[in-house]
Amino acid sequence: MKLGFIGLGNMGHAMAKHLLAAKHEVAVYNRSRPKAESLRPLGARVAETPADAARGAEVVFTMLADDPAVEQVVFGETGLLAGLAQGAVHVSSSTISVALSDRLAQAHEKAGQRYVSAPVFGRPDAAEAKQLYVVAAGPTADVERCRPLLVALSRGMSVLGEKPSMANVVKLSGNFLIVSMIEALGEAFALARKSGIEPKAFEQIFQAVMGQTPVLSRYATLISAGQYEPAGFALRLGLKDVRLVLEAAGAAQVPMPFASLARDHYLAAMAKGMGDVDWSALAALAAERAGLPVK
Amino acid sequence: MKLGFIGLGNMGHAMAKHLLAAKHEVAVYNRSRPKAESLRPLGARVAETPADAARGAEVVFTMLADDPAVEQVVFGETGLLAGLAQGAVHVSSSTISVALSDRLAQAHEKAGQRYVSAPVFGRPDAAEAKQLYVVAAGPTADVERCRPLLVALSRGMSVLGEKPSMANVVKLSGNFLIVSMIEALGEAFALARKSGIEPKAFEQIFQAVMGQTPVLSRYATLISAGQYEPAGFALRLGLKDVRLVLEAAGAAQVPMPFASLARDHYLAAMAKGMGDVDWSALAALAAERAGLPVK
Amino acid sequence: MKLGFIGLGNMGHAMAKHLLAAKHEVAVYNRSRPKAESLRPLGARVAETPADAARGAEVVFTMLADDPAVEQVVFGETGLLAGLAQGAVHVSSSTISVALSDRLAQAHEKAGQRYVSAPVFGRPDAAEAKQLYVVAAGPTADVERCRPLLVALSRGMSVLGEKPSMANVVKLSGNFLIVSMIEALGEAFALARKSGIEPKAFEQIFQAVMGQTPVLSRYATLISAGQYEPAGFALRLGLKDVRLVLEAAGAAQVPMPFASLARDHYLAAMAKGMGDVDWSALAALAAERAGLPVK
Amino acid sequence: MKLGFIGLGNMGHAMAKHLLAAKHEVAVYNRSRPKAESLRPLGARVAETPADAARGAEVVFTMLADDPAVEQVVFGETGLLAGLAQGAVHVSSSTISVALSDRLAQAHEKAGQRYVSAPVFGRPDAAEAKQLYVVAAGPTADVERCRPLLVALSRGMSVLGEKPSMANVVKLSGNFLIVSMIEALGEAFALARKSGIEPKAFEQIFQAVMGQTPVLSRYATLISAGQYEPAGFALRLGLKDVRLVLEAAGAAQVPMPFASLARDHYLAAMAKGMGDVDWSALAALAAERAGLPVK
Repeated sequence: MKLGFIGLGNMGHAMAKHLLAAKHEVAVYNRSRPKAESLRPLGARVAETPADAARGAEVVFTMLADDPAVEQVVFGETGLLAGLAQGAVHVSSSTISVALSDRLAQAHEKAGQRYVSAPVFGRPDAAEAKQLYVVAAGPTADVERCRPLLVALSRGMSVLGEKPSMANVVKLSGNFLIVSMIEALGEAFALARKSGIEPKAFEQIFQAVMGQTPVLSRYATLISAGQYEPAGFALRLGLKDVRLVLEAAGAAQVPMPFASLARDHYLAAMAKGMGDVDWSALAALAAERAGLPVK
Repeated sequence: MKLGFIGLGNMGHAMAKHLLAAKHEVAVYNRSRPKAESLRPLGARVAETPADAARGAEVVFTMLADDPAVEQVVFGETGLLAGLAQGAVHVSSSTISVALSDRLAQAHEKAGQRYVSAPVFGRPDAAEAKQLYVVAAGPTADVERCRPLLVALSRGMSVLGEKPSMANVVKLSGNFLIVSMIEALGEAFALARKSGIEPKAFEQIFQAVMGQTPVLSRYATLISAGQYEPAGFALRLGLKDVRLVLEAAGAAQVPMPFASLARDHYLAAMAKGMGDVDWSALAALAAERAGLPVK
Repeated sequence: MKLGFIGLGNMGHAMAKHLLAAKHEVAVYNRSRPKAESLRPLGARVAETPADAARGAEVVFTMLADDPAVEQVVFGETGLLAGLAQGAVHVSSSTISVALSDRLAQAHEKAGQRYVSAPVFGRPDAAEAKQLYVVAAGPTADVERCRPLLVALSRGMSVLGEKPSMANVVKLSGNFLIVSMIEALGEAFALARKSGIEPKAFEQIFQAVMGQTPVLSRYATLISAGQYEPAGFALRLGLKDVRLVLEAAGAAQVPMPFASLARDHYLAAMAKGMGDVDWSALAALAAERAGLPVK
Repeated sequence: MKLGFIGLGNMGHAMAKHLLAAKHEVAVYNRSRPKAESLRPLGARVAETPADAARGAEVVFTMLADDPAVEQVVFGETGLLAGLAQGAVHVSSSTISVALSDRLAQAHEKAGQRYVSAPVFGRPDAAEAKQLYVVAAGPTADVERCRPLLVALSRGMSVLGEKPSMANVVKLSGNFLIVSMIEALGEAFALARKSGIEPKAFEQIFQAVMGQTPVLSRYATLISAGQYEPAGFALRLGLKDVRLVLEAAGAAQVPMPFASLARDHYLAAMAKGMGDVDWSALAALAAERAGLPVK
């Protein structure tokens, strides 16, 4: 299939490679060009603009950092909206707001184009290893058309329904669940440490009792070690996602007090200049509030 | 070994059976006698009082509902403190407060007796299937003396240190982590439902993304189904445990805002007369706050 | 002085009258014309558009419901930005976001116009009785030029500094303080009622102890009576203001957990369809959470 | 009337003086004797024990720091319960728990004695100046018998009902309202400061808008100045009172999320070693969370 791929950060770069490996023709675009050039040996065409990446493509992926990045790539002068063919599909895999996802759906429909929301769960190493999990939503025919592509870059996928932004709600909810578990672990470790229990011992019991859940295990290990750098996922991005959750919750009139608390703690972290450490550093704040050294 | 076992509810009954099956001589005591009689065919001696259960025993277990029950069984006129031999061990497996555990340690020491705290993770079905996980703390020699017994009724155990109440901190922290996850799941399901997503679909994605963690899976399933009766673990006991966490946190000067929020939500549930439904009904409250029907 | 006044709701209508009474020439504009016509007998010129209201004016006030209303009146085709003369002043008295206030400052500066932010404390009856309190910020010369006008419609004013949006921060913070006191009163009344204390008795003690503070007295009285309709200030506007506080707090990296909690409670109220009752109905929710009837 | 007065701290000493000035015969007792001796020149009899202070007295006041102090004075070997005559009244003015107040009521009734709960609002300077406000509850006849005494040491009083602990609920609720206002002010000042507004300017506007409420004015002034030492009311006592509020709320099944948050913030303050600064230092924490220097 003829594809475009826009956004070649750690996530997008790996995803595009899987599509190339699956023998698709892929035109790639990235704001800083070297990341795009690195895919040329694998068969990619390096596009000059988002619109250029969309030229002749049946499906174009975007995998970008946040709302403003997506807005610029889509609505800009040489953007995707201008370049995408009638009937072609924009697959948005970025973690963006529900509101922007709704706006993209409308804009593409008005332009005679198709839009599928397909955010992914997993970090760069999972992307690399084809272990992402995809949550897709959009008109059934469009989702089905993209299914082989999504399968080619993931370990599995779920399809939700006709309204694309549903997938964004699920992605944001997933991140909210992780944030909540981080905060809860942070508070629990603080209590354990102040009660004289070794973090390592507490972690081992947690693992033994809770069973094999890679997501939580990872964070229990980081918190136990007090190791918040280098960031796997930066705290400022964690705050961004909690904000998006609260925005969606506000629009849907859903009180989410755990999310509210997490936002306040993230703001305190930002005010301390911790925007670039791992988002699990919520646990460092919990320790500090309890009068403990971070480690 | 000659043992006593006090408290034959759903948990204790199964635990005592495993000790009998391991060929120990066990004297059993329960406030309501029929539960004790049912173990006679398996070889148990039915004791008349806690002190009687302790007569001649090297180790006596208690597995009771809460602090007052333990206080009565231990400090009562015909209680364990009066009946336990010098050098014999009291193994407390109930989920009790850190403060009571400390008090038991002192009282037994003063009486020339030994005390090991060994609360367990797992529900009655796990107890039945020997799938409990034990967290033990106390003087090393005493813990080691009890190790074969604890192994006989569980799938594994961790030992923490010399101070018995450390094990209670860990048990309470574990329940706090579960409560936090329930609340977070409740908020996330409410957002998903108000966004038009089927609870069942949301649950499946949660399971796919979070991996195989029996503890969380169970609650995601209950919440997805909106099924809070019959209670696996009653909400009033959930509130009790959150209170004990906050008590321990207060004594250790550890702020635990998630626990505080959970307590407030449990109080609201109690005020609605929901004390006997499952503690996962926090999610029912989250749904209701969002203006959704419970199911 | 030659003035314009845009926005003749309960607040703006009263404010415009005071300016007319002070012998200024005032051109008035309101989306629904009858409110404007009612000021003609007092000497007002009825303008056709915001730009028309600004024609020849030295100072133009806006007193509107929210950000979108202000954006439309200022940036619209026949808007204030288009109609205001070089060097003339826009005085914004609406409760708007800090971000919009900053944007207005920039837009007017770029257009060679002046901008003063001057939100007011007080409800319609206070506006009528010239009992509003004004908080102003902006370039000193501009504020001073407007001072006689602001004095003409208020019981007093404070001037903050050169940056107009500071005044918006103060206005929003004031509303946040009131919301916090409402929530605290709601929780306290719920505890008192569940302890068998008559709300009226509790209110009287509150008044006796706290002294003469009209703002708090008013809410203590409403809550004591459980009387949340008709709304003095609608709950949906209360939520709007809390949102604006949290937005400003997010931008300034200030955790405000009380504001976060209040937002969640307001969302729960909205989800129950309580958007049009008085914002003090936070206390009704506190009562309900405690299992009490609202009154 | 023949009276006893137990507890001569800053509050009790001033209260006892007013009773002496009103020509009553007062036997005084204090744990450290010099405070008692200082009242001898004013006509007091210095008692050796609480029971001795109660000898022959019609009414005995207690004004002590906390629950343990009251328990010791009442239930101790030479305590009030042992010394108080049949039909004589114990007036408890300390800020104690609802549970202890209930227990005192029962104990005195069983002993054929009377019990009136009469906590007071106001700080030592108010006690000195006879500006305390009394909230009394208990059997009507007993309260009326004590009324002249309570009037003699206050600026006014309210009577609640037959159940003494109602007065304790009101006293604790009053302190909760003040704590809430302190926290809200702390958050608002933090936002204002981070927005470039001078604390002093913010304070003046607060005073202008909120009107003459001495309680709030005092705290706005302290927070504006960042002056938390010396303590007017120590933070550890603030925490104690919030704990008592939450205890009462738990027993009555009343969720009080603002109180929960305040408790967590006070715990964080304790963990930082701030137990002896003024309880308004909640605002110092709010500032710190926002990345501001305390002052």
